Amino acid sequence: MTDPAPIDWNEIAVEHPLPGIARQTVHGQNQTLVRYVYQPGSIFPIHQHPEEQITIILSGSIDFTVDGAPLTLSAGQVAIIPSGLPHGATVTGSVPVETLNTMSPRRQTAPRIGSSDEDGP
Amino acid sequence: MTDPAPIDWNEIAVEHPLPGIARQTVHGQNQTLVRYVYQPGSIFPIHQHPEEQITIILSGSIDFTVDGAPLTLSAGQVAIIPSGLPHGATVTGSVPVETLNTMSPRRQTAPRIGSSDEDGP
Repeated sequence: MTDPAPIDWNEIAVEHPLPGIARQTVHGQNQTLVRYVYQPGSIFPIHQHPEEQITIILSGSIDFTVDGAPLTLSAGQVAIIPSGLPHGATVTGSVPVETLNTMSPRRQTAPRIGSSDEDGP
Repeated sequence: MTDPAPIDWNEIAVEHPLPGIARQTVHGQNQTLVRYVYQPGSIFPIHQHPEEQITIILSGSIDFTVDGAPLTLSAGQVAIIPSGLPHGATVTGSVPVETLNTMSPRRQTAPRIGSSDEDGP
């Protein structure tokens, strides 16, 4: 069973999958929670994955492309990106962007940079 | 397919399942995202549900009981509450508490106040 102890974002390893993009990951049994911090100008290329993704914007504004269509999201907004739908994002504003992604089912494989099943954003 | 349009928390209906507790819900296909705002002194009684829950504290501090053990969570912390584990929470501090809960699989039934499968917190 997963231990219901507190998990502190400050104690979770930070990856930098792409320039200006920081990622932290928490796995449950049924879902994976990912925290991203994007610096201004950072770009997450178009990719796709089998997990459904809910993206929650905590601060800033970020320009997604989802299935070829623009989708700008700002703090206080959420979007559901269905399983398998190609998506990517760019930060065109001047402030960092913090998001949470919930992926379900749980990510079964480690994300691979440059592959089409990369898990963010 | 779920529409990947922006969802604005300000436009989502607010329920008040218990005194001092506000709840908003977004359903995906595989998961349910719930935003709670708890006022000081509010109490969510012990309950359980089959969905795994990840609780993310965005502001304030809240005292959970999980499977009989105390679990205090504050802003910047996360906890995974496994499927079926009894849990409840109380806000003993003087400031409101904002949390996000991600539930997976998606909630199949509407939450029922006072029943053992109520979905929060």
